[in-house]
Amino acid sequence: MTQVYDRIALIGLGLIASSMYWAIKRAGLAGEVTGYARSEGTRDTARNIGLCDRVCDTAREAVEGADLVVLCVPVGAMEQVAQDIAPVLKAGATVSDVGSVKRSVISAVAPHLPDNVHFVPAHPLAGTEHSGPESGFAELYDNRWCIIVPAGGDTDPEAVTRLRSLWEGMGANVDQMDADHHDLVLAVTSHAPHLIAYTMVGVADDLRRVTDSEVIKYSAAGFRDFTRIAASDPTMWRDVFLTNKDATLEILGRFTEELFALQRAIRTGDGDHLFDYFTHTRAIRRGIIEAGQDTDAPDFGRGVPKT
Amino acid sequence: MTQVYDRIALIGLGLIASSMYWAIKRAGLAGEVTGYARSEGTRDTARNIGLCDRVCDTAREAVEGADLVVLCVPVGAMEQVAQDIAPVLKAGATVSDVGSVKRSVISAVAPHLPDNVHFVPAHPLAGTEHSGPESGFAELYDNRWCIIVPAGGDTDPEAVTRLRSLWEGMGANVDQMDADHHDLVLAVTSHAPHLIAYTMVGVADDLRRVTDSEVIKYSAAGFRDFTRIAASDPTMWRDVFLTNKDATLEILGRFTEELFALQRAIRTGDGDHLFDYFTHTRAIRRGIIEAGQDTDAPDFGRGVPKT
Repeated sequence: MTQVYDRIALIGLGLIASSMYWAIKRAGLAGEVTGYARSEGTRDTARNIGLCDRVCDTAREAVEGADLVVLCVPVGAMEQVAQDIAPVLKAGATVSDVGSVKRSVISAVAPHLPDNVHFVPAHPLAGTEHSGPESGFAELYDNRWCIIVPAGGDTDPEAVTRLRSLWEGMGANVDQMDADHHDLVLAVTSHAPHLIAYTMVGVADDLRRVTDSEVIKYSAAGFRDFTRIAASDPTMWRDVFLTNKDATLEILGRFTEELFALQRAIRTGDGDHLFDYFTHTRAIRRGIIEAGQDTDAPDFGRGVPKT
Repeated sequence: MTQVYDRIALIGLGLIASSMYWAIKRAGLAGEVTGYARSEGTRDTARNIGLCDRVCDTAREAVEGADLVVLCVPVGAMEQVAQDIAPVLKAGATVSDVGSVKRSVISAVAPHLPDNVHFVPAHPLAGTEHSGPESGFAELYDNRWCIIVPAGGDTDPEAVTRLRSLWEGMGANVDQMDADHHDLVLAVTSHAPHLIAYTMVGVADDLRRVTDSEVIKYSAAGFRDFTRIAASDPTMWRDVFLTNKDATLEILGRFTEELFALQRAIRTGDGDHLFDYFTHTRAIRRGIIEAGQDTDAPDFGRGVPKT
């Protein structure tokens, strides 16, 4: 694989950045990768596990001379980081990010950047419920989508192409769309489902007085999958909901409407309505398997649990 | 492993029964296993893939001489099957089932059974989103729970012990509880989460006009897990909701309350409320990992998707 950037700076060293580092190294996509994390403990961990070629004690030090700077901090922290690093950005450098929300990141970051850098926001649709510098792995982006969301109509095409090459080199498929559309699609496919999973797990926990530890002990498929989703990073998700408020609330409103209709079918014993609804949703699953975004293995690919 | 029953009859040959067959054979738990399915196509498939030692064309033929008869049909079909086979059940035989709801199965089945058989309902907490005779595999029950729910206080302890040995021989951990308690625990851990997943997938599908095929293309973790849950067998789930109506509606009522509180926090920008809630739900996930009911692999144990 050809080197795409001489020097890349990763600001924030959680799951996404650490997976980027291992994927960049796997394919030799950069000459040097510097890293910075706000917490000293995270920086120490990164140094201990060999995460980044050089871990710096300030964000400014990390971005100095970098051809690409990727903001991998929670959406709510992007503005402050942008303000901090703006004065030392190299002329002609590209600034990107990995935030799950794009409209508000663009509003927060763009005004602080000098005119001589390219701002090319992006969002890799990949993750696990784990967080922190030790949670990353090189394969995270393999065959996953990364959506590039140019901040304005005048974005330099060459800067976009180069960022695209980086993500493709890390294993991802790359697509491009505008910020508002991105935020709506993600509200449906990710943000609303996460809030719903968090809610259901919270309800189950309330019931623990009634059901003792049985909720955990007998966590069947269904609840078990919800708990995995609801174990995602709290800071990241708080920021997602606060910054993609309108689209998330719209989808949740539609969700509640549908849920009430199904509850009514249960209450009135309308089996046909339930059967038709469940038959229909099954077809959507088929589409996702065909799109290569999940495995169809009979055991979910999880393998046989150790006894 | 020692043989537990001379002859076992499996009525209904879907995911649960076919997995039972392979697990019984793996451990040599029965002398002969007969099988029956209502559809001729299913019986043909079973014969072609060697599912069951003998596939019979009627339920009566399959249960004749059986020491254990397991009803593996949807909950809504149990009563009719019980009525049908009652006259030919062997004296001293045990009748069991694998239904996801227990109170209504007991009410539907018990009145039809002769006094000289033992009725010992059970529910293995295991499954995948696949259905049909070809979806089974011997490992499905390994380290999963099977809950035995004796139909009345006067159930023969020896019949319970024997059924317990069978499930343990198939790899399961066995526990015992009463029907109402079972139905409440399952409403929390399985039934309500399934309805919620079905609902969210339905909402996403409605939005396809807006978002084109992007909902499928960009299905991030979150929605992707929901679609897996929402791909489960429609007949089975229709029957579950209709027969565990009260407990499911109660849990859904609590769910809606919580969801409204979180929506309000989003609307008012109450980040602390969201953060605290999400931090709390994360701990529950930890409990499930520790209980050995899911894997903690960073990639969910799914392995690297094929490109």
